[in-house]
Amino acid sequence: MAVAELTPSYTKIHLHSSELSFLSTRLFNQRQCAFRPLPKTQHARISCSVAPNQVQVPIPVQTEDPKSKADCYGVFCLTYDLKAEEETRSWKKLINIAVSGAAGMISNHLLFKIASGEVFGPDQPIALKLLGSEKSFQALEGVAMELEDSLFPLLREVSIGIDPYEVFQDVEWALLIGAKPRGPGLERADLLDINGNIFAEQGKALNAVASRNVKVIVVGNPCNTNALICLKNAPNIPAKNFHALTRLDENRAKCQLALKAGVFYDKVSNMTIWGNHSTTQVPDFLNARINGLPVKDVIKDHKWLEEEFTVKVQKRGGVLIQKWGRSSAASTSVSIVDAIRSLVTPTPEGDWFSSGVYTNGNPYGIAEDIVFSMPCRSKGDGDYELVKDVMFDAFLRKKISKSEAELLAEKRCVAHLTGEGVAVCDLPDDTMLPGEM
Amino acid sequence: MAVAELTPSYTKIHLHSSELSFLSTRLFNQRQCAFRPLPKTQHARISCSVAPNQVQVPIPVQTEDPKSKADCYGVFCLTYDLKAEEETRSWKKLINIAVSGAAGMISNHLLFKIASGEVFGPDQPIALKLLGSEKSFQALEGVAMELEDSLFPLLREVSIGIDPYEVFQDVEWALLIGAKPRGPGLERADLLDINGNIFAEQGKALNAVASRNVKVIVVGNPCNTNALICLKNAPNIPAKNFHALTRLDENRAKCQLALKAGVFYDKVSNMTIWGNHSTTQVPDFLNARINGLPVKDVIKDHKWLEEEFTVKVQKRGGVLIQKWGRSSAASTSVSIVDAIRSLVTPTPEGDWFSSGVYTNGNPYGIAEDIVFSMPCRSKGDGDYELVKDVMFDAFLRKKISKSEAELLAEKRCVAHLTGEGVAVCDLPDDTMLPGEM
Repeated sequence: MAVAELTPSYTKIHLHSSELSFLSTRLFNQRQCAFRPLPKTQHARISCSVAPNQVQVPIPVQTEDPKSKADCYGVFCLTYDLKAEEETRSWKKLINIAVSGAAGMISNHLLFKIASGEVFGPDQPIALKLLGSEKSFQALEGVAMELEDSLFPLLREVSIGIDPYEVFQDVEWALLIGAKPRGPGLERADLLDINGNIFAEQGKALNAVASRNVKVIVVGNPCNTNALICLKNAPNIPAKNFHALTRLDENRAKCQLALKAGVFYDKVSNMTIWGNHSTTQVPDFLNARINGLPVKDVIKDHKWLEEEFTVKVQKRGGVLIQKWGRSSAASTSVSIVDAIRSLVTPTPEGDWFSSGVYTNGNPYGIAEDIVFSMPCRSKGDGDYELVKDVMFDAFLRKKISKSEAELLAEKRCVAHLTGEGVAVCDLPDDTMLPGEM
Repeated sequence: MAVAELTPSYTKIHLHSSELSFLSTRLFNQRQCAFRPLPKTQHARISCSVAPNQVQVPIPVQTEDPKSKADCYGVFCLTYDLKAEEETRSWKKLINIAVSGAAGMISNHLLFKIASGEVFGPDQPIALKLLGSEKSFQALEGVAMELEDSLFPLLREVSIGIDPYEVFQDVEWALLIGAKPRGPGLERADLLDINGNIFAEQGKALNAVASRNVKVIVVGNPCNTNALICLKNAPNIPAKNFHALTRLDENRAKCQLALKAGVFYDKVSNMTIWGNHSTTQVPDFLNARINGLPVKDVIKDHKWLEEEFTVKVQKRGGVLIQKWGRSSAASTSVSIVDAIRSLVTPTPEGDWFSSGVYTNGNPYGIAEDIVFSMPCRSKGDGDYELVKDVMFDAFLRKKISKSEAELLAEKRCVAHLTGEGVAVCDLPDDTMLPGEM
């Protein structure tokens, strides 16, 4: 039976019992959470646990360093020896996945997808590390409670916290979703600065405590430049490991081409989004294929391709907000799942996927030292290579140049956050995507 | 190649082009939606389609009866011959699944789970039929757009509408989530009447147009009595096919026992929720097991089991709302997935699951002709049998009787909706679950 190897982590409550006086939340009688808001430079801690006096099963000696699990939640505070049980013996090693903005709507979809096993597979036990803010802390507890109530067999640890130095400890994936949304009257340069500061801090935290080969996907906007800031603040992590999410744009572009051609979307392949996740993005109809044929051979309306297609892809989010009254959290989270899966499963022969990645020695002549969406292939090992056999024409080159210029301008605007001197903000037109402002 | 067999359903636009003048939504240049609000007794129609002038591929003759696909949306308006393509040849026959309240938060999670294949498996193509209201119609379009953008390979049809007689056509599953939530000042009897009317109409519609063996899961509250009303209005569908969702209660009960015992939730089995999905529900700790042992042998604090456990399960939703600011849409949708899976996969040896089902010849001595949550087992064929080897003691009997009395009172209160004469409303205390009022 499985009782003996289960180690309720009750000792943590003892360690932190004095902290209860700061901000204590008593969820129920048998569950206690202690939360100590400390100055930003120190590490705030949160611990939730089964209280010791409720534990009825035999309790083995607590051997693990209690500090390593300081942030656990409820039933996820127990420790498991997966190797000791028949059903879980063949499972992989637990994987640590951090999600920022964990109390938000995108995460509310994404966390349950990850926990269900649909992202990393049915033999991959999961530890979720949820990063929120002081304001969202109660909501984080709500998310953790719903994860408990979902009884996902693969979900073995959930921890919640507001300090990235705590939450990012040993993480192998960091899905950075949280960012301040653009409010009325907030200039784009202000947003770059505010969110840039968040991603600078998170980069430093990843650099300090994450796994040395952590993969980072930045979703919070402006995601390309946020990813650049993040990687510049994490010099000990390979720059290649940082991604800015352009997969939703890719998915939308495939759908629009399918609609136009009158085919199911699974017939569209080789879709690249080039450049910035903004209105300067370039959905590439020169290299994309429909039923294996060049798009231009299938869709004869080249005027539509050149003048309407890109706008349709970009405006999709805005139309959705108008229809649906909220932003596209469900399909965004699907695209994050797609982005992760593209890195952990081999790319189908002849196809590729788009990701915003660091332009270090790229074969396309794009400026170095920015984060630019480009076509990638993966062997399924978490890494990727840029695709070499792509075509360019004058139209595509011109579009790519415009997005490149924008990203270089954004980079100058955040120089104070990347360690490259004084920021000079000469941003061109406002190019935030509709639905994300 | 796959171009030839794809049949853009453009003829529908021609058929309904006069309807555009009523309430026309032009999503984009190439997509048109026509919606004709008709009196309730007639059948309103909605059709969205790729417009004919954008179709570039060879167009075979439209042979299918256009009426049968009158409600399709965007890229899902195409027709597919799955047998003609190598990747999809081995797939099962398309399954029609209706979801009411499709623009709501629970559906926003559930629809994407169903479309991803995690509910019915990787070889089961899916047709989703979304039922909304006139007010939510634009939001329904938003949901359909997000489903398009998610590029789910198994999702082959999406249709949206506001008339259950249209939407329920040939459905094999009806997941009835939509119901009016309890507002301030609304008495429970009023709610029973308002929602009862919705479920009476939906029962009639299922009776008229659904598959003769449709499985119905009622989620909208008060779900037991709504399910009773629904099945009474669908005399040509087996009463056994109707379920009221008590799976979230079961999941929460398992989690609370796990927390108390200090074990992972997968060690808790044989959990029954008896009775009504209300505060009279009875989470059964007499028959439940932890690590295969009776709960009372593992959790020695019997006072907690008798006095606190049930309250904790019931109040979970209320605590969540308090923490999280919204109701538990994510874990509710997980529990709906669990409920469906329990019917389409064989129940593990020795275990069971709970569902609110029709008490027709039940072995427990519970009043006949109500919908009561009881322990079930399934061979995985969509059907179930009640579990025979359960124990009762005086405590459990007394609790069950109270829930039974409540459901009989609710039944008298909706007699006008079940065809059993004049309603007499002598409801006991207000027993709506916290978080659902």
